[in-house]
Amino acid sequence: MSDSTQAKKQVFEFEEGDGKNKKLLGGKGANLCEMTQIGLNVPPGFVISTEACLNYLASPGNGLPTELLAAIHAQMKLLETKTGKHFGDGKNPLLVSVRSGSAMSMPGMMDTILNLGLNEQTLDGIIKQTDDRRFGYDTYRRFIQLFGKIALGVSDELFDREMNTVKQNRGVKEDLALGADDLKEVGERYLRVILEQTGKPFPSDPYEQLDLSVKAVFDSWMGKRAVDYRREFKITPEMANGTAVNICTMVFGNRGNDSATGVGFTRNPATGENLMYGEYLLNAQGEDVVAGIRTPKPLDSMAKEMPDLFRQLQVLRGKLESHYHEVQDFEFTIESGTLYCLQTRNGKMNTTAMVRSSVEMVRENLITRRQALLRISPESLAQMLYPRLDPHANFEPLATGLPASPGATAGLAIFDADRAEEQGKAGKQVILVREETKPEDIHGFFASRGILTSRGGKTSHAAVVARGMGKPCVAGAEGIEVNVALRQATIGETIIHEGDIITIDGTSGKVYLGVVPTIEAEITAELGVLLDWADQEAKLAVMANADTPEDAKHALQFGAKGIGLCRTERMFNASDRLPIVLEMIIAEDLAQRQAALDRLLPIQRADFKGLLKTMAGLPVTIRLLDPPIHEFLPAEQLLVAEIEELQHLRKTVGGMVILSNTLELLHDEKLSPAEVAKIKSNAVNPHLVDEALIKKQAILKKVRALHEVNPMLGHRGVRLGITFPEIYIMQIRALAEATVDCVKEGLDVHPEIMVPQVCTPAELRFVRGFVDQIVAEVEKNSGIKIKLKFGSMIEVVRACVRADSLAEEAEFFSFGTNDLTQATFSFSREDAENKFLPAYNQKNILVDNPFEVLDTQGVGKLMELAIKGGRGTRPGIKIGICGEHGGHPASIIFCHKIGLDYVSCSGPRVPIARLAAAHAKLNEEPA
Amino acid sequence: MSDSTQAKKQVFEFEEGDGKNKKLLGGKGANLCEMTQIGLNVPPGFVISTEACLNYLASPGNGLPTELLAAIHAQMKLLETKTGKHFGDGKNPLLVSVRSGSAMSMPGMMDTILNLGLNEQTLDGIIKQTDDRRFGYDTYRRFIQLFGKIALGVSDELFDREMNTVKQNRGVKEDLALGADDLKEVGERYLRVILEQTGKPFPSDPYEQLDLSVKAVFDSWMGKRAVDYRREFKITPEMANGTAVNICTMVFGNRGNDSATGVGFTRNPATGENLMYGEYLLNAQGEDVVAGIRTPKPLDSMAKEMPDLFRQLQVLRGKLESHYHEVQDFEFTIESGTLYCLQTRNGKMNTTAMVRSSVEMVRENLITRRQALLRISPESLAQMLYPRLDPHANFEPLATGLPASPGATAGLAIFDADRAEEQGKAGKQVILVREETKPEDIHGFFASRGILTSRGGKTSHAAVVARGMGKPCVAGAEGIEVNVALRQATIGETIIHEGDIITIDGTSGKVYLGVVPTIEAEITAELGVLLDWADQEAKLAVMANADTPEDAKHALQFGAKGIGLCRTERMFNASDRLPIVLEMIIAEDLAQRQAALDRLLPIQRADFKGLLKTMAGLPVTIRLLDPPIHEFLPAEQLLVAEIEELQHLRKTVGGMVILSNTLELLHDEKLSPAEVAKIKSNAVNPHLVDEALIKKQAILKKVRALHEVNPMLGHRGVRLGITFPEIYIMQIRALAEATVDCVKEGLDVHPEIMVPQVCTPAELRFVRGFVDQIVAEVEKNSGIKIKLKFGSMIEVVRACVRADSLAEEAEFFSFGTNDLTQATFSFSREDAENKFLPAYNQKNILVDNPFEVLDTQGVGKLMELAIKGGRGTRPGIKIGICGEHGGHPASIIFCHKIGLDYVSCSGPRVPIARLAAAHAKLNEEPA
Repeated sequence: MSDSTQAKKQVFEFEEGDGKNKKLLGGKGANLCEMTQIGLNVPPGFVISTEACLNYLASPGNGLPTELLAAIHAQMKLLETKTGKHFGDGKNPLLVSVRSGSAMSMPGMMDTILNLGLNEQTLDGIIKQTDDRRFGYDTYRRFIQLFGKIALGVSDELFDREMNTVKQNRGVKEDLALGADDLKEVGERYLRVILEQTGKPFPSDPYEQLDLSVKAVFDSWMGKRAVDYRREFKITPEMANGTAVNICTMVFGNRGNDSATGVGFTRNPATGENLMYGEYLLNAQGEDVVAGIRTPKPLDSMAKEMPDLFRQLQVLRGKLESHYHEVQDFEFTIESGTLYCLQTRNGKMNTTAMVRSSVEMVRENLITRRQALLRISPESLAQMLYPRLDPHANFEPLATGLPASPGATAGLAIFDADRAEEQGKAGKQVILVREETKPEDIHGFFASRGILTSRGGKTSHAAVVARGMGKPCVAGAEGIEVNVALRQATIGETIIHEGDIITIDGTSGKVYLGVVPTIEAEITAELGVLLDWADQEAKLAVMANADTPEDAKHALQFGAKGIGLCRTERMFNASDRLPIVLEMIIAEDLAQRQAALDRLLPIQRADFKGLLKTMAGLPVTIRLLDPPIHEFLPAEQLLVAEIEELQHLRKTVGGMVILSNTLELLHDEKLSPAEVAKIKSNAVNPHLVDEALIKKQAILKKVRALHEVNPMLGHRGVRLGITFPEIYIMQIRALAEATVDCVKEGLDVHPEIMVPQVCTPAELRFVRGFVDQIVAEVEKNSGIKIKLKFGSMIEVVRACVRADSLAEEAEFFSFGTNDLTQATFSFSREDAENKFLPAYNQKNILVDNPFEVLDTQGVGKLMELAIKGGRGTRPGIKIGICGEHGGHPASIIFCHKIGLDYVSCSGPRVPIARLAAAHAKLNEEPA
Repeated sequence: MSDSTQAKKQVFEFEEGDGKNKKLLGGKGANLCEMTQIGLNVPPGFVISTEACLNYLASPGNGLPTELLAAIHAQMKLLETKTGKHFGDGKNPLLVSVRSGSAMSMPGMMDTILNLGLNEQTLDGIIKQTDDRRFGYDTYRRFIQLFGKIALGVSDELFDREMNTVKQNRGVKEDLALGADDLKEVGERYLRVILEQTGKPFPSDPYEQLDLSVKAVFDSWMGKRAVDYRREFKITPEMANGTAVNICTMVFGNRGNDSATGVGFTRNPATGENLMYGEYLLNAQGEDVVAGIRTPKPLDSMAKEMPDLFRQLQVLRGKLESHYHEVQDFEFTIESGTLYCLQTRNGKMNTTAMVRSSVEMVRENLITRRQALLRISPESLAQMLYPRLDPHANFEPLATGLPASPGATAGLAIFDADRAEEQGKAGKQVILVREETKPEDIHGFFASRGILTSRGGKTSHAAVVARGMGKPCVAGAEGIEVNVALRQATIGETIIHEGDIITIDGTSGKVYLGVVPTIEAEITAELGVLLDWADQEAKLAVMANADTPEDAKHALQFGAKGIGLCRTERMFNASDRLPIVLEMIIAEDLAQRQAALDRLLPIQRADFKGLLKTMAGLPVTIRLLDPPIHEFLPAEQLLVAEIEELQHLRKTVGGMVILSNTLELLHDEKLSPAEVAKIKSNAVNPHLVDEALIKKQAILKKVRALHEVNPMLGHRGVRLGITFPEIYIMQIRALAEATVDCVKEGLDVHPEIMVPQVCTPAELRFVRGFVDQIVAEVEKNSGIKIKLKFGSMIEVVRACVRADSLAEEAEFFSFGTNDLTQATFSFSREDAENKFLPAYNQKNILVDNPFEVLDTQGVGKLMELAIKGGRGTRPGIKIGICGEHGGHPASIIFCHKIGLDYVSCSGPRVPIARLAAAHAKLNEEPA
């Protein structure tokens, strides 16, 4: 059919409508046409086009145009021919459904009238055909109500009142308790309501019913609710203009034992297994399933009960998948041995099933790899990569906080890091519960399965560290009051004692008492296959942020192509190092500081060696110390309180009185267990307290000296490397020596040194001077050649502007878009997300949170500037990103567009990033 | 003389050497040639070129080349002809000086030998000619020592030992106490030293003396000290290669009463007055002036004493100025009635003199306006614009801090803002002395002449606010310990009690006890003329940052062309407003906040009216509230301490015991004087304390809620305008109403509204919505049309990147380079300057402090990006700068280059900026 003919036509048989032309036929109409045309046995019907609707609405006062009515009635005649039934016939009546359907799904418009064409005569025919009086009368009274409401504008309430009267009279509460005669009476009462309300009897002429219904559907397009909806959701006439009307023959699954009704998935939506999945009811209507009186059977049973029809269903399934190239969720009805397909749509599946079915459909040549990759949303993979609560488990949350790091886990609630470490080492599953966490709690993180805090946001220390480690975290659950001294937390009336089991869900932010069943992460074989395909398509390589050999092992399992960011400060925080780091920080001179660094060197070397070994063959990017050193120190307030307590203790120690909470403080103090025991035994040596006091006071002094007004813009990163070069020198030496150790073991290792917070090439030259010198020295001592790359973080705005000269020193760049975003917007992330970003989003000043979605218009422009500058100076320079954006699909697509070489993200997000990288590449190619 | 001849020639008479060719003749030689050639009576002489030096140094073992010796000796013959004296002649001996002189002044090379040619015979002649035996022997023994040391390499010590022996023998301590015979003996002893040390007698042949001296000067070019010096100061061969040698006839001012010696300035270097200024001694050598035995007379006396020679001196002065076009500082000697000019150079003058002489020289057609403008360094004007300590006053500073805001002043030391205000209002001159200041001290700033703090840096609150107000400030004088409770400060042993007078010098950072005499700022008539010329040349307009009508008045006096930045938050800080602002901040809901704002509205309107009236005819740029609101609140620590004290007081109040320091706290509390009196009277109402407690606790709660991790990147600027629009609405309304009030009074006012911290056009649209609405409303109510410009600060990096779209909303841009620099470098200024910038400068990672000198490579590139973007969208958009860089000459030159329309800076820097703006323009034109 040529376009010009189609344009004039306003009514289309399912056999002739263009299945792609949703604008003309509406979504539902086009779908029915398509199904019909691919050979599915759809009950015959036709579509009245949206153009007909607009044409009518242009002069609505005039009623439906005569030519339109003629075309509709002609189609009804055709239906009679196709079905052998007759509209209004008392013996073998043709009944139809009337449905609205515009190009966009739009609640608020008139929806569906079923069984149009019923009247006293045709009802009689239906009762005879189904041999079910109750069904007949029930169907009739439903039709009267729907038609009355939609086509005649009679209020539902009036019908409901009649229904209640009948139920009261019969002394029953449920509709289901009503018998055939009762429903007959209901129908009669409804007819009276119509007469009273409209002043006319219910139209028994089927054509009158049909014409009024079509007109009502058309009118509903301009109804208040539909207009409001379109305004609210910004649906423009370009997107959807006018509604189509779908007229479709009714078929009945309750015409005897060769009839049935059911729903099916072409594959198992829970697992993706290539087996049809669904259920059906013999001799029943769809409503019977909804009513829940009879239990449907699985489709497998149909193979025995109706083998021939089951074979037809298998054929239907094949047709659906080979046409739609997606798993389909379909509805069917069998009327007197004939299978009808009523509806089909893409099946909603969990991600595991989606991945499996996609991979298998490629193997079955149903879809291409490209289609398989593109049909799966990268973000949806998160479902498979983090443990989650069993959706069937029905527990009431005790409290809700912020979903700070995804995943769900259960464990014993423990209120301080030392005890968490102790219990963790004893093999217990632990959840660290704190008001808020500090860097000195880090050993507690290592030992715990998850972290729960009552204060702080998504960017609090707890949240950032937990995300970095890939452990679940609920942050800022303000309903929880943590009392460390009493070793308990209160939530309203509930008290959690230390050691009680709780479950946290870092994906939703919910906290539960007891064990809620969880579903573990499932990296299936099919996911592996899919991601391999993704890697073959992608231009961007995906690396992982990993700080420990354990992290690195996970990263490899997730398919990382190297470590894009190792935050060496995490190594400083482990409980065996923190005391040495503290010593280094409170050192009064270089000699003292060097002594501490000398003790750190072998530890750091072992750290690096572990990483390099694990990642043999792949690059390992070591970022030199970044955070301001005061981050390793305890909070001022805490220290002041501790000192006061110690001073008090000092007084009471004279009289041998020890308070248990001051003992706690001594414990926090990291005195050795023996020393604590001594104090506990009552044989207290006051000198011990004095020593603790002196040390605490020294730390307090340093805390005050190191205090910064704006730590985000403070004394950190390479600025530390310039003011205290000995720290960087120790780290560089540790890496060089670790490299040599690995080479001696025959390993192919690829260390890379990355300098943070760089703003000018002189900083890089300064650090590079150390690298060259130390590498030469280690090479000379060992006789082994060290291959090592030297690069720069690009996280300071000035680095973007001066990238051309930075590239003279740097062999690679890595964008730190967390800090870069903060500096570009002048937004401190923590302050912004707590104080004003919500208002910005709400007032539409910013559409997204730029810390979650990379700001391509601002930060992105600076990145492009840096890439241009860097490649201008050093054409082959490797450029990547290691901020949180590196794991987020939309941002990854941007990274691909601007020509990055790699993205680096936390381990569990690596698969997401791999798929997103493939999407980025595939979406720029023609299909 | 052609170039090729000159190139071969190695020895040049003063009459023939090219006065511009310093490379060939050295600085001193070229100067002597120039002086000779412009007709000054320079004692005859010649220059041995640097080429001769290099030629000799190419093979130094060979001694001076024969041709060179021949040329030198030929020149000596010529000298004899010119002077009528003879080299080595016993009657009328020719003596010469030998001086080194390369293209660059270079200490560490051999300098000067005087009176070369002396021996037994010529000494005799000199004694006869001067009739002064003592002079003769003294001159001789000095020559022997200098020659011995320089030409023969004999150590000074050996000569000094002989001198001491003679003095011991004579029983005198001073050289001056030695008579002619004593000095004769010294000379003889020196000759013996030479014989002992060199094994040869002292060369009495003048030509031998000359040849050895020239050779010694040449050799000194490659001496260790000279080589080290060139390496240290990076003097390359292109800058200076080899040294010249200047041979010049000695003249004697001590040949009788028609001889004299003296120094002069062509104009008075202290005032610039067009009168020759200087002093002379009749019948004396320059050394006599140095020795201080005789007091020189002012040159005026010469008019009587030697009227003819005085006239010659006047002629000399005229020649000097008309040739050099600069005030000259010259030396002269009169030998037997003949005036010789020995040396001249540009006179060092204070800025006042420099300005006056420059303006007058233009009027005398000696120089052009362009020359007048360019010869004065803009920064040097600071001397005239701030009060300074009298350089002749000789006081010992008590302590030294950081020079935080320039200027010097004396006043009573007062230790808190309230008392400062009280005393200030009582007409006392007050200096506010605090450990550190906070926004709540601001009323104390208004009342004080200067501010002294013992903590904090150049970017502390005290420093920033004082600079803004143009008041002297010494910050971080750590030697001072302030004890508010005792009302005193201790500096070592010294105690300053409240009310003691101190003097602070914010230009040097020094603090003095008592009144040190100061010189007030002096905006002379000549400065006014000069700056008018500057304005005629400059392309950049200069505006002022001013927050009050008083500031604005000063700005006008300094020649500002408008107000480029009015910081409205300063208005919030005055003591009559702060309580209302506090109310606004601690308001629990919009209604409470609105009530406080309603009280602020008339105050703010009056502020704006005052500014607009003062600046009638000129633009007044009002920046809406910028700082985070917690800046208006007291410090947490302080509040906690106060609450503890109040709680303690609450207990003791029961027993009627009042401690004086808690009373102080109540006083700080801003209880009304009546309430304080009530408490003091011992009839304490505990409810009063309770009320104070409740209020303090409410503030503390708010302080904690408003706490920010990085306030620089926090909830401030337009972010406040978006979260609490009612604040901006109040300010906009106040400005609109103030404008209408002014128009009603017939004034031509030009208000402009500027939005701070903008990062996206949506923010501007949001605020502009209020502006349009309020302006329309006020126009409607008043019937008066409001002309108002709407613009944006460009101080967030993203604003630079998105300037194209910001320009759709903004009619002007103003760069806030303080914040922009912080964000571009990711340097928090306060943290950087205290913690790591010094190391950056010291290790040459950054040459300048980017907060003082605009970073053209980084921040500057972003500015250029913003200008391009802004002008692309709105070609005529007005663009300026209002950060501190706007008052610094180098940065102003950059602002000119990138095409800004104006700079805005603090009042006293306006003249500096006006001159710098002229320099920027003039320096890009050919001379």
